Amino acid sequence: MTNELGPLAERLREFARARDWEQFHTPKNLAMALAGEAGELLAEFQWLTPEESADLDPETLARVRSELADVTQYLVRLADVLGVDLVAAAYAKLDEGEKRYDADLYRGSARKAPPLNP
Amino acid sequence: MTNELGPLAERLREFARARDWEQFHTPKNLAMALAGEAGELLAEFQWLTPEESADLDPETLARVRSELADVTQYLVRLADVLGVDLVAAAYAKLDEGEKRYDADLYRGSARKAPPLNP
Amino acid sequence: MTNELGPLAERLREFARARDWEQFHTPKNLAMALAGEAGELLAEFQWLTPEESADLDPETLARVRSELADVTQYLVRLADVLGVDLVAAAYAKLDEGEKRYDADLYRGSARKAPPLNP
Amino acid sequence: MTNELGPLAERLREFARARDWEQFHTPKNLAMALAGEAGELLAEFQWLTPEESADLDPETLARVRSELADVTQYLVRLADVLGVDLVAAAYAKLDEGEKRYDADLYRGSARKAPPLNP
Repeated sequence: MTNELGPLAERLREFARARDWEQFHTPKNLAMALAGEAGELLAEFQWLTPEESADLDPETLARVRSELADVTQYLVRLADVLGVDLVAAAYAKLDEGEKRYDADLYRGSARKAPPLNP
Repeated sequence: MTNELGPLAERLREFARARDWEQFHTPKNLAMALAGEAGELLAEFQWLTPEESADLDPETLARVRSELADVTQYLVRLADVLGVDLVAAAYAKLDEGEKRYDADLYRGSARKAPPLNP
Repeated sequence: MTNELGPLAERLREFARARDWEQFHTPKNLAMALAGEAGELLAEFQWLTPEESADLDPETLARVRSELADVTQYLVRLADVLGVDLVAAAYAKLDEGEKRYDADLYRGSARKAPPLNP
Repeated sequence: MTNELGPLAERLREFARARDWEQFHTPKNLAMALAGEAGELLAEFQWLTPEESADLDPETLARVRSELADVTQYLVRLADVLGVDLVAAAYAKLDEGEKRYDADLYRGSARKAPPLNP
């Protein structure tokens, strides 16, 4: 990765190399690990109201931060193994989204335009 | 976010603001969107062997890149709403992982040390 | 499977056999497919308030029913491949939950006792 | 639910009622819990080869069985809250799949016909 996440990707690569774990880090396996961590993140929010989720107590926020870190690690590692520049890919998708979802037309409507980039 | 992902976070914030979608971007909802996109990423790999997943044809790689972009967008947006610095959090977790998984002790073993940071 | 889901498991088995798809139905792959479908289910609910999610319009309910069907198929197929009786396993877990979460002690509290069986 | 899963659905309903947890069991929240458990199931398989996943040691199988039980509980509870008959929905989807994927045409090909019912 040649973008801003490069140094993190490099340290994760070295972490895997030093333990001979590259053999486990196939894209298939890393996608599973990423989704598993996304599931742990979900679990932190599942019984909270949307309002409560926006006002976390410090203990919950610390756990959420730790889960976000896990998701980030696997996402950056997966992109590195695949040779994908995450930030460039995100900007490209955002360019599409800005054309697709006219700001005036979709204002305030999640029904008409659910995802950032569906 | 004050780190390398700051400009992306800022553009996503503006994207949501311009459409009055901030009301939908609670941490609970964004965690769901993130996990949903992680699920779409999984679907690209589910019938491939680990070896095939490491050698994608260009069409599949393009779809995977697009899913990685979606995951990145929701992850960065969620972290921004929560005030979490993803890169700093990832480094903190990696520091822990390097202490926890001694390179010599865990060499080549996914059984003893499955995740990057379990 | 010898329980109530037996006939469904048997038809799914025959469906896979007739197409020579058993080779793709490893537990690893089926767990990915199950999680992918759970992600599609999530996507139906991600921008709804909890109240809206309890009062779906007919079109959304039809899509949700279809996603629930997909989750059920992969869950039953995975359990069949592993030789697990899902209903017996669920009752066993429920027995544990009933002991663990005293009804008087945990009444009305998701904080103290978030999941059915955490 | 009036199908074979009815008694399990009923016991889960009573479990929630006795603890006054029905307030937490909105479809949105239950879909999150289901996806979270599907993520825990994934984690059991993420570093295994497909072959290893088909030949689990007894300890791993016991953990997998427990995760399958959790997924089943939330799936049955969610369907019950929504008034969806899971088994009927699964058969309806399977009818579609059998028409869509001609057995001769799709034999042995996961590329052409990845999911059971995509």
